[in-house]
Amino acid sequence: MQINECDILITGGTLLTMSEKMEIIEKPLIGIKDGIIVTVQANGNREIVSGGAKENIDASGCIIMPGLVNTHTHLPMVCFRGMADDLPLMEWLNGHIFPAEARFVNKQMVYDGTLLAMAEMILSGTTTFCDGYFFEDKIGETALQTGMRAVIAQGFIDFPTPGNPNSSKKLATAERFVANWRDVSPLITPAFFCHSPYTCSPETLTTIKEAARKEGIPWLIHLLENKDETETIMRRYGRKPAQHLHSLGVLDDQTIAVHCNWADPEDMAIFAELGVKVSHNPESSMKLAAGVAPIPEMLRRGITCGLGTDGAASNNDLDMFREMSMAAKVHKVTTLNPTVMSAPTVLKMATSGGAAVLGLADRIGSIEVGKDADIILLDMNKPHLTPLYNCYSQLVYAACGADTKTSIIGGRIVMRDRQLLTIDVDRAMKNVRAIADDIMRG
Amino acid sequence: MQINECDILITGGTLLTMSEKMEIIEKPLIGIKDGIIVTVQANGNREIVSGGAKENIDASGCIIMPGLVNTHTHLPMVCFRGMADDLPLMEWLNGHIFPAEARFVNKQMVYDGTLLAMAEMILSGTTTFCDGYFFEDKIGETALQTGMRAVIAQGFIDFPTPGNPNSSKKLATAERFVANWRDVSPLITPAFFCHSPYTCSPETLTTIKEAARKEGIPWLIHLLENKDETETIMRRYGRKPAQHLHSLGVLDDQTIAVHCNWADPEDMAIFAELGVKVSHNPESSMKLAAGVAPIPEMLRRGITCGLGTDGAASNNDLDMFREMSMAAKVHKVTTLNPTVMSAPTVLKMATSGGAAVLGLADRIGSIEVGKDADIILLDMNKPHLTPLYNCYSQLVYAACGADTKTSIIGGRIVMRDRQLLTIDVDRAMKNVRAIADDIMRG
Repeated sequence: MQINECDILITGGTLLTMSEKMEIIEKPLIGIKDGIIVTVQANGNREIVSGGAKENIDASGCIIMPGLVNTHTHLPMVCFRGMADDLPLMEWLNGHIFPAEARFVNKQMVYDGTLLAMAEMILSGTTTFCDGYFFEDKIGETALQTGMRAVIAQGFIDFPTPGNPNSSKKLATAERFVANWRDVSPLITPAFFCHSPYTCSPETLTTIKEAARKEGIPWLIHLLENKDETETIMRRYGRKPAQHLHSLGVLDDQTIAVHCNWADPEDMAIFAELGVKVSHNPESSMKLAAGVAPIPEMLRRGITCGLGTDGAASNNDLDMFREMSMAAKVHKVTTLNPTVMSAPTVLKMATSGGAAVLGLADRIGSIEVGKDADIILLDMNKPHLTPLYNCYSQLVYAACGADTKTSIIGGRIVMRDRQLLTIDVDRAMKNVRAIADDIMRG
Repeated sequence: MQINECDILITGGTLLTMSEKMEIIEKPLIGIKDGIIVTVQANGNREIVSGGAKENIDASGCIIMPGLVNTHTHLPMVCFRGMADDLPLMEWLNGHIFPAEARFVNKQMVYDGTLLAMAEMILSGTTTFCDGYFFEDKIGETALQTGMRAVIAQGFIDFPTPGNPNSSKKLATAERFVANWRDVSPLITPAFFCHSPYTCSPETLTTIKEAARKEGIPWLIHLLENKDETETIMRRYGRKPAQHLHSLGVLDDQTIAVHCNWADPEDMAIFAELGVKVSHNPESSMKLAAGVAPIPEMLRRGITCGLGTDGAASNNDLDMFREMSMAAKVHKVTTLNPTVMSAPTVLKMATSGGAAVLGLADRIGSIEVGKDADIILLDMNKPHLTPLYNCYSQLVYAACGADTKTSIIGGRIVMRDRQLLTIDVDRAMKNVRAIADDIMRG
């Protein structure tokens, strides 16, 4: 491949490949063609290169790294950001979130909220997300519009919801969703999301998991989020939550268990044995006082873990840099061990780990020849990022989302020099403010 | 006072006064004259105002609030930011930080590091800091240059240090420091900092505390940071650390106890009785796995608490917005109570609480007529800050330092529209990079 046949060339800066070997390349040359990384060389000679590709990106002063992977969120909930905080979980859910969702969630709200959420995510370095909410088709359509890589998960719960008033037609809903989204775009992966062991019957869980297996797609579930979930499931089924799911035969290596704050050694043994993946959402679980997942122990046992923000109603942002900082720190202090969750470990969770959680490890999560070009540039020429001894430390402990300068997803530049190229951000903010005005009027 | 006699007028936006009554004023008019807030009105009429003052600041789309107060830091340690992370405390200190300090700390390093740290602090909304490091005079001089409000604390420890090779001449050092800084500027308050109960003898503690009392200035000490500090002090003096200090008679309402991660009910009873103030530094204590201070319980007991970042070697930034987010979340999850450390509580700690900790409550910490004009504007017109239901929630849970748009300290505009007006930031970064290059060469 000649350099001048590339669509995009990136030169200069420091490349964190996040490959298995964690190679770091100074002044690299990265060539992208048809959405794929076709060359990664050391000592990229900008003079040879200049003018060679259609798009040339000078990464001097930048760290170049794989785009961040947010393994769990509910994007339209940005419309509820900061609406109700510092409340007990059940008062928050039953007194504020559920009533607001029942009244205000519709296709337009999902679209407007998702568009704003995607602006926030791209501006803070995320290139891939896994979402579960109502009207999930709208979220897929918005991802196509903005160019983000998405795992969109059709939700299932045993009561009527906005967009799914008849909860009994689950299998038909599942089949229709996959038929709609299979092969629409290499950027979109459909998935199924059963809400939780306490809101889904054994029949719902097994039916939807069977459909997911048939389609070969990921199956997600909120699991072991709160302390009292275990008691509820024990009372109802005579088993702890993970054991309950295991006895139903729904756990496997295409299962993504979200939260797992109260996973005990027995639960972790099941996850490790079956290859269950875990999505860790520290900020949301801390803010809701739900608990701290035993991630260092899970990693020790070889369980694949990724990071997620959860929705903006419980976080209250979608910034994966803040999530990394929190993940690194909260486990150190709760274990009283400053060596756990090192900066490279956390950065892996936010890139290659997250890709593996979502079943996309062969395509994204590192910058290597043959992988899809999901790449971000961080502007390191700022006081809070100076001096620079160790790139991993700097990204996890000092950088913030706003340091993201440029973002490429599947070979398409979606942000350049902080300018979003696929989203009218002022319009997106205006539309969500109008929704919030409606909500405030009640 | 006529509006056109003001030096600065701020109009529009939303004002969080952070006064006792926590008043919020929409579209205020704030007038500043000779560094003092001379008027705060509702419904500021921009038409009457325009052209009235020397400087007119349009705060439309902004939150206006008191500048943040960082109650504990070691500014020049930005030079060691990210140099050594994810290590056990003693390996970090003895293997990396202390050797680097012994070799590389000098007046020039302190100046260069402090200048960069001040750029970082102003860019992230801090207007007042309390610092303790070597060559503290240099830190005072740099504050005069940049216009920041500073409590500069001369340090004392029972072994030779850079800038203070003869540790026996403590009293003379203390007297000279206060003589140098008393009445130099209303922005500068001198203070004394005894390092800790395990590095300062009873004689050092009582001598320096007596000098602080004579001068009427704050006296600081690192206290109860790590679990094993209690054991060390028990073994040496037969009392727990706070009891040890109490028995020496050095605790009072001009004492600032930094960290207090392992404060037990007896310690808190002493603090409450004597009016001891507490500086809470959650990010540093989490990253070093030192512990989590029982701040919700301290607040319940009426102890005055402020927030601090600690130095950038253990944080690794000086961003008080990140510190607020962490403070709000870590206590919720460790107490499993989502109602503790509410957003308004945390924002008070970072403003009026911090001012009270530093003995500056009569001058800063809120926006009220008669107070010094330490004011920041936050640009809320951003995706991650949209929509806006609750200003306190938005600032604590979603905002970051980079959202600070404009900063005024003592009536002087030190940053306008993200442009630093008192610091050459490129030069500051360049100089600290040169120091880091020296350190890396070893």
